[in-house]
Amino acid sequence: MKRIAVVDTTFARVDMAGYAVRALRAAGTGFALVRRTVPGIKDLPVACRQAMVEDGADLVLALGMPGRADYDRTCAHEASLGLQFAAVLGGRPIVECFVFEGEADDPRTLETLARRRAEEHALNAYTLLFRPDDLGRRAGTGLRQGFADAGPIRPR
Amino acid sequence: MKRIAVVDTTFARVDMAGYAVRALRAAGTGFALVRRTVPGIKDLPVACRQAMVEDGADLVLALGMPGRADYDRTCAHEASLGLQFAAVLGGRPIVECFVFEGEADDPRTLETLARRRAEEHALNAYTLLFRPDDLGRRAGTGLRQGFADAGPIRPR
Amino acid sequence: MKRIAVVDTTFARVDMAGYAVRALRAAGTGFALVRRTVPGIKDLPVACRQAMVEDGADLVLALGMPGRADYDRTCAHEASLGLQFAAVLGGRPIVECFVFEGEADDPRTLETLARRRAEEHALNAYTLLFRPDDLGRRAGTGLRQGFADAGPIRPR
Amino acid sequence: MKRIAVVDTTFARVDMAGYAVRALRAAGTGFALVRRTVPGIKDLPVACRQAMVEDGADLVLALGMPGRADYDRTCAHEASLGLQFAAVLGGRPIVECFVFEGEADDPRTLETLARRRAEEHALNAYTLLFRPDDLGRRAGTGLRQGFADAGPIRPR
Amino acid sequence: MKRIAVVDTTFARVDMAGYAVRALRAAGTGFALVRRTVPGIKDLPVACRQAMVEDGADLVLALGMPGRADYDRTCAHEASLGLQFAAVLGGRPIVECFVFEGEADDPRTLETLARRRAEEHALNAYTLLFRPDDLGRRAGTGLRQGFADAGPIRPR
Repeated sequence: MKRIAVVDTTFARVDMAGYAVRALRAAGTGFALVRRTVPGIKDLPVACRQAMVEDGADLVLALGMPGRADYDRTCAHEASLGLQFAAVLGGRPIVECFVFEGEADDPRTLETLARRRAEEHALNAYTLLFRPDDLGRRAGTGLRQGFADAGPIRPR
Repeated sequence: MKRIAVVDTTFARVDMAGYAVRALRAAGTGFALVRRTVPGIKDLPVACRQAMVEDGADLVLALGMPGRADYDRTCAHEASLGLQFAAVLGGRPIVECFVFEGEADDPRTLETLARRRAEEHALNAYTLLFRPDDLGRRAGTGLRQGFADAGPIRPR
Repeated sequence: MKRIAVVDTTFARVDMAGYAVRALRAAGTGFALVRRTVPGIKDLPVACRQAMVEDGADLVLALGMPGRADYDRTCAHEASLGLQFAAVLGGRPIVECFVFEGEADDPRTLETLARRRAEEHALNAYTLLFRPDDLGRRAGTGLRQGFADAGPIRPR
Repeated sequence: MKRIAVVDTTFARVDMAGYAVRALRAAGTGFALVRRTVPGIKDLPVACRQAMVEDGADLVLALGMPGRADYDRTCAHEASLGLQFAAVLGGRPIVECFVFEGEADDPRTLETLARRRAEEHALNAYTLLFRPDDLGRRAGTGLRQGFADAGPIRPR
Repeated sequence: MKRIAVVDTTFARVDMAGYAVRALRAAGTGFALVRRTVPGIKDLPVACRQAMVEDGADLVLALGMPGRADYDRTCAHEASLGLQFAAVLGGRPIVECFVFEGEADDPRTLETLARRRAEEHALNAYTLLFRPDDLGRRAGTGLRQGFADAGPIRPR
């Protein structure tokens, strides 16, 4: 049985992991869920590493909500590079799902965006692990997470 | 018995480690404290690595106070990336607690901010190590360190 | 027999991998093709790592199409650094082929650019693996991918 | 007996290593000195790695003087990240001492600044290796290198 | 017998490797030359890694000519970080020699600059490997590559 780790933060203002877990359970079975919560996005990479090494995760979904200040963008960049390093070092996917507070003008839209993006990344995580060929069939078709798909330039 | 390392700098203008250590001791028992002090923030990553490898630390709290110049932001960015690398490589959390001199207009406010943030990160460190489920219960609730919490968008 | 992995994304709006695979097959024989598709460009580095470790790839062609927003440039930068890390760590080439949506003003030009660049990077990948001396003969001659060659400053 | 490596560049316009070595010798005994000189700051990280692996250095002092152009700032950033990587990977401190040509308006001031900073970083290096508790006593007291100390916000 | 690898690109518009190889041969003997050519600068780091691991290179000279667009600067930065990582990981020097197309206004000056810089970096590479003490004697004397030396601030 495969193991999927869902790692999130107390900094985020939306329970993204809750949405992600429900989406994962709805997507299918055959996996055990591991949960880790850390304070902020810069704590995510090592938690992903621990999820791989200590919890035996085959894939990690890393959820976070950087703030709207300039410095938050820097922190998100550092966290993303840490996630890249952890994923490559461990040889197992870390699906990064970040929603910036500044992406939405009001809290309601932010909640909706965070929910949709968490759900769609959860689905991506499930597909990566269990139905990689489904991704292959949709290669180059302009899919988006949390927004309307852009679609392929040349319909197939 | 777990080991927590507290690593700080002589560059900082506030004894952040002092506040952190008191907060850790107030939080609970069951851990031994290790202390390391380095000149500046760019010396923190390797000191964290040494705290893991030489002192057997299970978690490191890295405290620093970057200056207010542009170049200090670059140094903080480099230090943060070093901390990411050290944490992932070691597979043990490094809780980064940086307070930028430019975050406060007067020394008194800076002292207060540094104190609060050091204490709250210390508490986070303790919780990460001893009560990870407490973090899980507060996932996505908009917690902040050194400022008022932002709170969740949708109250639970 | 050598193995070439072609890794692409569902985010891209052009089937770059399709063009690349056809170009590879037209270039010669003596290799087996491995395919992996991931959601976005930041998922490419670990997929390249998996292609090396799990699929035994001797070379990976990583294809992606970052969007036109500022944030997409940051993501592309993070993905590129992840690809650098994966390539050096694995000691096997990862040929990065990114086409930014903002490089072309209309979809048709973007499709053509993406096609040409995918084909030319595929050819480069093939040459790197099977005819490295051909590259040596064209060293310093101002070759470009997806655009007209710049040519050498001093004709030889 | 401990080994301290002093690594510098031919690019720098001040003999920073000379000042550093004299300061180290004045600071105390009990260490052997290793010297390496490389062309520029981007050659420092691997030289530090070689100083650890080939020369058995317990600590490396890396001295450099980036130029005043924009591109020099980028090079210094890349060198700093390389130094972070080398220090964490080796688990031994690399004390980075960079003086930017643009930090001083005239050569004389630059010479004085470079001398003071090299000497103070050398002293830091010595203290890190032989008297770490001295650093602990000065934690959070606003020490600076090459400039007047900022001092602690709240005198102790 | 030592091995020096010279790695360059087909993207460059000047045969920098040709100039470098001639400068190396003129500098002395006692080494075997290895050559690798890759498409662009971002392919250099892994080729340097391969030159160390597969070809047994003791030192690599990495030559490239980034274009004049903003994006080229980003690519050069990514390539440089990859080179840092490869050099530190391998513990053997990678002498980076980049000439930006935008550094010169006309092709002739660019050719001259690229030639001079390639030759001087080749000489540096030779000296690093065979006469490291020569570098030590010129420490802190303001040497430059491809331009007139800046010289030491205080003549010795």
